[in-house]
Amino acid sequence: MKTTALIMAGGRGERFWPRSRKNLPKQFLSLTDDGKTMIQLTVERIRPLVELEDIYIATNENYKGLVLEQLPGLPQQNVLCEPVGRNTAPCIGLGAVHIAKKYEDEDAVMLVLPSDHLIKRNDVFANTLRAAVDVAMAGDNLVTVGITPNYPETGYGYIRYNKEIRQSESYAVDRFVEKPDLETAKQYLAEGTYLWNSGMFVWKLSTILKNFAKYLPETAAGLEKIRAAVGTPQEDAVLQEVFPGFASESIDYGIMEKAENIFILPGDFGWDDVGSWLAVGRIRKADEQNNVIVGNVVSVNSRDCVIQGGEKLIAAVGLEDMIVVDTEDATLICAKNSAGEIKKVLEHLRSSGRNQYI
Amino acid sequence: MKTTALIMAGGRGERFWPRSRKNLPKQFLSLTDDGKTMIQLTVERIRPLVELEDIYIATNENYKGLVLEQLPGLPQQNVLCEPVGRNTAPCIGLGAVHIAKKYEDEDAVMLVLPSDHLIKRNDVFANTLRAAVDVAMAGDNLVTVGITPNYPETGYGYIRYNKEIRQSESYAVDRFVEKPDLETAKQYLAEGTYLWNSGMFVWKLSTILKNFAKYLPETAAGLEKIRAAVGTPQEDAVLQEVFPGFASESIDYGIMEKAENIFILPGDFGWDDVGSWLAVGRIRKADEQNNVIVGNVVSVNSRDCVIQGGEKLIAAVGLEDMIVVDTEDATLICAKNSAGEIKKVLEHLRSSGRNQYI
Repeated sequence: MKTTALIMAGGRGERFWPRSRKNLPKQFLSLTDDGKTMIQLTVERIRPLVELEDIYIATNENYKGLVLEQLPGLPQQNVLCEPVGRNTAPCIGLGAVHIAKKYEDEDAVMLVLPSDHLIKRNDVFANTLRAAVDVAMAGDNLVTVGITPNYPETGYGYIRYNKEIRQSESYAVDRFVEKPDLETAKQYLAEGTYLWNSGMFVWKLSTILKNFAKYLPETAAGLEKIRAAVGTPQEDAVLQEVFPGFASESIDYGIMEKAENIFILPGDFGWDDVGSWLAVGRIRKADEQNNVIVGNVVSVNSRDCVIQGGEKLIAAVGLEDMIVVDTEDATLICAKNSAGEIKKVLEHLRSSGRNQYI
Repeated sequence: MKTTALIMAGGRGERFWPRSRKNLPKQFLSLTDDGKTMIQLTVERIRPLVELEDIYIATNENYKGLVLEQLPGLPQQNVLCEPVGRNTAPCIGLGAVHIAKKYEDEDAVMLVLPSDHLIKRNDVFANTLRAAVDVAMAGDNLVTVGITPNYPETGYGYIRYNKEIRQSESYAVDRFVEKPDLETAKQYLAEGTYLWNSGMFVWKLSTILKNFAKYLPETAAGLEKIRAAVGTPQEDAVLQEVFPGFASESIDYGIMEKAENIFILPGDFGWDDVGSWLAVGRIRKADEQNNVIVGNVVSVNSRDCVIQGGEKLIAAVGLEDMIVVDTEDATLICAKNSAGEIKKVLEHLRSSGRNQYI
């Protein structure tokens, strides 16, 4: 049976400003030592399971050019452009009907993956996905991959699973839970039956489409109109007409939290959601003072810093726990413990009309 | 009697890097809100006492163009270029014989002033200098202006004076002392008879030249050769031949610490030696978060910072007690308590051959 993939690449991350911009969000940036962009790495790591021609990218018209530029060989028609953002459920539904119509095969398996996460051990990841595909093919199962938590993170959703109910290498999911407070997160860790929600899913097209019909019937009806138009001259017109009418809904809330037959595979492959510049300090090689430094930089008595320079000289003197990111037209200097406030810079820029920096 | 001035402007300050460079030292920078450069402000504040044509600038060939550019109207021949740096004694001696020969008048008074200090109350400063001129003219007195200390600074030399021995508004100097440690500095403050050594002097040409003859006889002999050549076709050749042979010596150590008839006037005119970027935080207008910000800057939750930007956007997020200075080709980011280590950046640049930034 065919294995396909839908990579979701419509996000507009602001947290990597000034490298990320409205026209160049995080998934198209290279944040690792190898120089590859996040979306390139995402495609590369699923290639052991999926042919390039079976990989679909959900994004929007603004980023279509970037997708094709960064993924040479990807068929142009595999780039699905959402007319507007409607969260993950309509995005995944669009991918499902598009692929189902194209292959005329609802038994095909569909991987759903974010485009902006990092994974250290690609071989373990591929094996985990293979096991997930097996579970997905074994029945009408909705399969997800959870990350074994190693600290009580409060920024992620968690998934509780039942160790007693197994389906080959997976476990039955008890429930999805929202981002917890620190106390609750500590409890989750102590209980040992919670995994981080990674946003990675595996299922047969038929399975997810049945669940759309059951839990999001209005969206499902619209998706059927789109499916009928795929490959016809009306395809784009129907998409433009129907898609904006979809209710904005996450796949987690719209389907996963309600559906049955959900299974999860614990993943232990060095996952990082690369949520902010802080992640770059974890991901890239550090020097003896624990600085991650790139570019034309002189560091004097600085430690625990992330400094992303370019050609322009940056002299860092006596810095601790700082993030410095230099680009052609803007320089960010940010205390590590203020990384969450970078979005306030963008608010300031918008309100002062300096949109060229956004 | 004529009052002349020698402004010493040969310094190569590294502490204002990256704004100051080998070819643009501190005295030629504008560091104040009014946009005037340090040397322009220095000339401006002595104009109530000295005509522009009687102001001489001691510098070197590299900076002659800058001097003439920044001081329009200054006669070109009033720029004295030292062939090499030999500290302040030979510099002042050169000025003294040059001026003496030109006016054929050893009774003329000579103010000697640094070119890179700031003064808030120019009227008080001018009055203090006028009083100093009176004391200098009253006899063979070496007069200096000391700054009333308001905290136990360890980076300046101090001058002890005798409150009992007065000469009009001045006091007899007991002794010059080197930069003290903190305990000693505190004692000086408690005693109330110490002033900061500001490096400003007033004397008749005849007085300082007599003191050269007495305490630095070899230099005095060389200075006489130079005097004989001033205004002749041999002037430059003699200067090039004689000056490099002078022993490198400060006027403090070479003459002031040994001479007699030294008087001091306490100065209370808002003096600042502008020793580092920290000074800019004191000098310029601060915002409500005590940031001194210039240029295209967005500040989010930053306080007590000095940010000197330009056209390029600088976003400062969560910064405290930082110095940020952006220039065309280099950006300095420095913790305030590490301002003394900026020179290490220059050492790094030299040793790595990046001389274009120096």
